[in-house]
Amino acid sequence: MIPQLSKFLGPSNLRKCSPEAYRKLREILCKFEQGAILGNDIQLTDKEIKANETIMCLKMEEYNRGVKDPNQFAPGYHIFERLHEIEKSPLFQLIRKMPKGGALKTHDTSMCSTKFLIGLTYRSHLWACTVDDGCKILEFRFSKEMPTKMRHENGKWEKMDELRDRRGEVNMKKQLLQHFSMYPLSELQTNDKAWDHMMSIFSLLHGLLTYYPVWGEYYYNALKEFSEDGVQYVETRTLLNPLYCLGGNKLPVKETLQVYNEELRRFKADHPDFIDSKIIYSPLRHTTPENMGGHVKTCTELNKEFPKLLVGFDLVGQENEEYPLKMFVNELLKMPSHIKFYFHAGQTNLYGSPLDENIIDALLLGTRRIGHGYALTKHPLIMQLVKRFSIAIEVCPICNQVLQLGADYRNHPAATLIANDIPFVLSSGNPSFWRTKPLSHDFYMAFLGIAPRNADLKFLKRTAKNSMRHSALTDEEKATAMQKWKSKWDEWIDYTIENADDIMKQPEK
Amino acid sequence: MIPQLSKFLGPSNLRKCSPEAYRKLREILCKFEQGAILGNDIQLTDKEIKANETIMCLKMEEYNRGVKDPNQFAPGYHIFERLHEIEKSPLFQLIRKMPKGGALKTHDTSMCSTKFLIGLTYRSHLWACTVDDGCKILEFRFSKEMPTKMRHENGKWEKMDELRDRRGEVNMKKQLLQHFSMYPLSELQTNDKAWDHMMSIFSLLHGLLTYYPVWGEYYYNALKEFSEDGVQYVETRTLLNPLYCLGGNKLPVKETLQVYNEELRRFKADHPDFIDSKIIYSPLRHTTPENMGGHVKTCTELNKEFPKLLVGFDLVGQENEEYPLKMFVNELLKMPSHIKFYFHAGQTNLYGSPLDENIIDALLLGTRRIGHGYALTKHPLIMQLVKRFSIAIEVCPICNQVLQLGADYRNHPAATLIANDIPFVLSSGNPSFWRTKPLSHDFYMAFLGIAPRNADLKFLKRTAKNSMRHSALTDEEKATAMQKWKSKWDEWIDYTIENADDIMKQPEK
Repeated sequence: MIPQLSKFLGPSNLRKCSPEAYRKLREILCKFEQGAILGNDIQLTDKEIKANETIMCLKMEEYNRGVKDPNQFAPGYHIFERLHEIEKSPLFQLIRKMPKGGALKTHDTSMCSTKFLIGLTYRSHLWACTVDDGCKILEFRFSKEMPTKMRHENGKWEKMDELRDRRGEVNMKKQLLQHFSMYPLSELQTNDKAWDHMMSIFSLLHGLLTYYPVWGEYYYNALKEFSEDGVQYVETRTLLNPLYCLGGNKLPVKETLQVYNEELRRFKADHPDFIDSKIIYSPLRHTTPENMGGHVKTCTELNKEFPKLLVGFDLVGQENEEYPLKMFVNELLKMPSHIKFYFHAGQTNLYGSPLDENIIDALLLGTRRIGHGYALTKHPLIMQLVKRFSIAIEVCPICNQVLQLGADYRNHPAATLIANDIPFVLSSGNPSFWRTKPLSHDFYMAFLGIAPRNADLKFLKRTAKNSMRHSALTDEEKATAMQKWKSKWDEWIDYTIENADDIMKQPEK
Repeated sequence: MIPQLSKFLGPSNLRKCSPEAYRKLREILCKFEQGAILGNDIQLTDKEIKANETIMCLKMEEYNRGVKDPNQFAPGYHIFERLHEIEKSPLFQLIRKMPKGGALKTHDTSMCSTKFLIGLTYRSHLWACTVDDGCKILEFRFSKEMPTKMRHENGKWEKMDELRDRRGEVNMKKQLLQHFSMYPLSELQTNDKAWDHMMSIFSLLHGLLTYYPVWGEYYYNALKEFSEDGVQYVETRTLLNPLYCLGGNKLPVKETLQVYNEELRRFKADHPDFIDSKIIYSPLRHTTPENMGGHVKTCTELNKEFPKLLVGFDLVGQENEEYPLKMFVNELLKMPSHIKFYFHAGQTNLYGSPLDENIIDALLLGTRRIGHGYALTKHPLIMQLVKRFSIAIEVCPICNQVLQLGADYRNHPAATLIANDIPFVLSSGNPSFWRTKPLSHDFYMAFLGIAPRNADLKFLKRTAKNSMRHSALTDEEKATAMQKWKSKWDEWIDYTIENADDIMKQPEK
């Protein structure tokens, strides 16, 4: 289309246009542009059109208020500053109820709410390793006797019950609330420091969550919290930590998967609307090619034992110059091709760095999705190939902000992905650490702050549907998934129509 | 290329690749990608290759230091926090000396350094209108007697000499330093507030600069400061304010242009290396279609009188919803087509707003360049047309940061323009208000923080050459311009080679 248009459009010819011709041409150009944006392939039903009116009414009210007074526009601010404000937004509340399909990028120990984590600290036999007279907890461990291993200078093991009594319950709750998430904002100055902070939380949670009886409960609760947020399908990246028992014994890794299997079975029995969950084995990227070879073998073997559960492979941890993806090509190419790759890549704003080039290797290794792909818009050729091969980008807007990649949602590169209709799914990464809902806050920020102003229900529906289309489900499973989601979706549309007046009149609680 | 490649590249086939084939394929893909980036059409001479080694050595030293310790990476911070640090950078010092070609986006009353402005306040007959017992100056006016007009509540006219004596010279200097620029950072919370602040400085400077004897001197000094920063050609947007005389008489607008003409003639005579300067008439966009019709007429008439000087038209002032470009289409289409358009458009991160759509109208009106075009990467179709028609984007990285569009240079959308080889020039907008050099700071930020890590002398040379290619100069004038620039460029290359050791060993002053 471009070459023909250009003859007509050339800058000098344009000046000879009549106002009428100008307006016609403008209309056509806008139609072309609009039609190419993500979500515009969706045909809304009559009911959806009606529900859309309510949604857009809420969106435009909030948007216009933000244009008038930028202080009132949440996507211009850090999530930590606006978390509670957002929860009062009627738009957010409606998005909260929306069936969002799947959450494709989660990490197994950063899924549950802080509240649930604090609850776990009341369990029997829990010990805490503290410094500063108990003001800072560095490690947890379930044990009958005082743990003998001490990995922290000046650390002191103390029974959690006694620590709580000594410091007072209210104090301890406050302290844990801070320990378990990345608040306050002021500590997070750079991408590296934010990563260090995040990794320290993973490390703190390790002994609390890898305790055999807790592990399954955490996972079950994660599925529950996700389900309550309108998520019917979950893919989880996991390091596959071995679990430990009260006596200190470590179990073989396949027990970890066995627990997943069992809890998932139980959760699905309790929640027939829930679609499924799959596991992506994701060891740390900071390793040697030799160890990577070992990970590939482990993954292959575990996949034989759990062929429906463990279906993919990824590498996690901060991308850096020392461990580019290309370092492991020889080993990764040995992975049986039915185990799909879902690589994190390009979670950086350092254009042209080895981190940024991981996108190229993810593509060349045949990845089915790219975790973050924050750098993708700086690689137009790769972006074309990503589109051509239907590789979905797992966009995690809030995660990118908290990890200091970008400050303002209105500048998030996903807007360019949306404009180019690049396969796109929304995820939250580690919602536990930013105290957000499993998907709702990310949907809210993307809908209000990243997508174009007139992005509407079509955008939301396309994004939800994408999460199944680009999942690790088989084609048959996808068909069932789509049915289960569709039935919830129709309910939500009905709810939105029936309660339009209430939804628009007052902020929900 | 894409369709053929894709057969070979399809994600499932890729997994059957041998490591050798993988590496070859990767190499080819990277070459394709690299070759398409802005600047890669440039063939460096042997001498340039040698100078490039020094440049890249400086760049990589600073870049790698920044990767190790992000606190030391200037492009991750606000310019106001790092201004003095940057001046110590050997890379910055070398860029400062580089012949940069033209500065295509400047505004006539925000070009000179604060130092020069403070100097002007020592002139005879200057009055200041102050509030808060002189702590805040709201207006300047040259006059024999005390000015009679009072536009400010509680304002008080006072002779500048007396005010300075009363408040003390050191105090007054500090106060003026703050009045004349947008420091400190803390006051600038949102895009709107930053704009308000900037407009208040324009308003404060009005009476100081539109005084007939000062106007010419300001322009001459602006050309001098730009010239000292390696700029040989300047295009200036101007409101064409009428000038006033000591008695208060206002002169007809053509006198304003006459002063430009005369000062430019004088400057060129004094500086034979300087290429030229052109004027783009740029009234405020916040007006009625009827008034716009008047501006078009004025522009047409003035162009007849100053056909070589006043060659283009633009609209200035903050883009907003009330005054979209499309509102003035009927009037703008009446402009004779030899007067080129150089529209500001899309200086916003509000995707899908009328501000954002100004880009579409700028294109359809046949603009030859787009001022800012910050929103362009959200409009892939327009971006293709912009490239096809060779419309240059005037990228002003520091201006975008100060006006609160984006915080981190590594996220500036111009990286995507560079990756797509979109015609691209660098400019500074209003360097006077951010205390930066006319072009050097913007070049430094773009080179170190926006362009890919391996962007080198080819990028710098392409950017400099683009500023002449996309200027309002005629083809003949461009040939001469290129010669004048080339001779300076060769000198700089020689300087860089000859002083390589000194340049690399110690920070210059």
